[in-house]
Amino acid sequence: IAMKKVSCCWCPSLTTGRDSACFCLLAVLIALYMLLGAAIFSSLERPAELQANNLWSSRFETFSEEYNISHEELRSFLQDYEEARTAGIRAHRARALWDFPGAFYFVGTVVSTIGFGVSAPSTLTGKIFLVFYGLLGCSATILFFNLFLERLVTFLSVVILWCYQRRSQQNRLEDKDDGSHSEATGKPSIPQVTLILLVSVLLVACCAASVYSAMEGWTYLESLYFCFVAFSTVGFGDFVSGQREKHEGTRGYQVANCLLMLLGVCCTYSLFNAISVIIKQGLNWLLNYLDVMYIC
Amino acid sequence: IAMKKVSCCWCPSLTTGRDSACFCLLAVLIALYMLLGAAIFSSLERPAELQANNLWSSRFETFSEEYNISHEELRSFLQDYEEARTAGIRAHRARALWDFPGAFYFVGTVVSTIGFGVSAPSTLTGKIFLVFYGLLGCSATILFFNLFLERLVTFLSVVILWCYQRRSQQNRLEDKDDGSHSEATGKPSIPQVTLILLVSVLLVACCAASVYSAMEGWTYLESLYFCFVAFSTVGFGDFVSGQREKHEGTRGYQVANCLLMLLGVCCTYSLFNAISVIIKQGLNWLLNYLDVMYIC
Ligand SMILES: [K+]
Ligand SMILES: [K+]
Repeated sequence: IAMKKVSCCWCPSLTTGRDSACFCLLAVLIALYMLLGAAIFSSLERPAELQANNLWSSRFETFSEEYNISHEELRSFLQDYEEARTAGIRAHRARALWDFPGAFYFVGTVVSTIGFGVSAPSTLTGKIFLVFYGLLGCSATILFFNLFLERLVTFLSVVILWCYQRRSQQNRLEDKDDGSHSEATGKPSIPQVTLILLVSVLLVACCAASVYSAMEGWTYLESLYFCFVAFSTVGFGDFVSGQREKHEGTRGYQVANCLLMLLGVCCTYSLFNAISVIIKQGLNWLLNYLDVMYIC
Repeated sequence: IAMKKVSCCWCPSLTTGRDSACFCLLAVLIALYMLLGAAIFSSLERPAELQANNLWSSRFETFSEEYNISHEELRSFLQDYEEARTAGIRAHRARALWDFPGAFYFVGTVVSTIGFGVSAPSTLTGKIFLVFYGLLGCSATILFFNLFLERLVTFLSVVILWCYQRRSQQNRLEDKDDGSHSEATGKPSIPQVTLILLVSVLLVACCAASVYSAMEGWTYLESLYFCFVAFSTVGFGDFVSGQREKHEGTRGYQVANCLLMLLGVCCTYSLFNAISVIIKQGLNWLLNYLDVMYIC
């Protein structure tokens, strides 16, 4: 079976030159977007970094003097602590990482490619196993996300067709024609899907954030930030849900956490795909515009 | 424009019931796969975690006694260190995180959704900006990956058509027919694409691993593990390339690092998609098999 998905219907124009131009234009735009982002983040975060550096230097100095510890000795202690951290030790006791629920949470972050990094395999066998496990697991999850998107669009089609039929019945009574062609076919348009997905993601994020801010001791804004970082599968690991020792007993919260994550990741993946189609349309429009400019 | 990609040609059967069955079967299989994975990782990593716990407890105890520091005091010092770590401080000096190249690396981990978490925005403005920045950036990157996959399949089609034409010329000379229909159309089959992508990923990973093991002081196996974790966009952050202080000056290595990552992530994304199509075919085969079983 040939790779149909790729060869058909994704791009309106099927000429190779046009597609390559589209690809190159996107690459250039992403590079520019990254340069812009780097400049902004650098200006936002650099002062905070320098301030944290000064704060830590003075803390280090004071501690070293107070207990009469040489800098080398203290640094080597911190180095050991860093190694212990990668095996899951925290200054204030966190929950066990590699009991069964912990390992399940870890496996979830692997197959969803969130990868918080709170736990990562420390043994060589674990590392080798991870590669093979992840290869199959990540592929299966991509398929799951794609099927979710497919199911969602089918569901939205049904809903929109139903709405259209209701409206056309009303119109027949009122003898009007609103001329919306896309609804007549019962297929949702890209902006419709994007809007619905955006609202869904916001709803899930707001619900999840209120749960997290109650259970994790984060502010609501921090919880929203965590939701975005987790749902987009970026997963920095600066905030990670369900890691406190007290959460070990609350099975209900753990399950809710997993379900919220699953729903959030699925919706956000769909939203990214919908936005990417809009970007694609924008690129085509831009190429057409450049074509016209070039010919004139 | 209707969401064509989703509605056409991804699934051989277009009946809704069949698709839902496919989706549910996949969900169940992924859940089982995750439970199995959790059991295996738990048994592999739990002993190492307990050992690391003991090691750290004794180190903590010894240090506390040696310098006559109360446990609370030492724990609070480590707590402060953890906070400093999130702002990028390390026991042994690492490179600056939020200078321009550092911020660029950070932005790269955001839009690719790798998210190593070595640096994450610490200011509230940075966090809010990240959400909007990531929304557009991640969508653009998904489009980039999809276009890369499209370009790749087009390229492979051309290569395979060329190979077929060469072979058919030879066959005409030798008057043979090998009957391979998929090559005749010039479209690569899924197993062909998967195999080529697997070889590509392995090649990129091996090249990258030899660079990383030379520059980062990791073993070759550790470098390969890092490559998989980075290329699959899981990004635990236990190993992160280009973070040492000495790398600040080596601009060539930084650029090579970015290019290797880009190539690796693109190829691995394509590989995951190819494998996901194979899994989809497997699911359909399984559903057919279950249908037959159920009818009998
Ligand atoms: K990630
Ligand atoms: K990550």
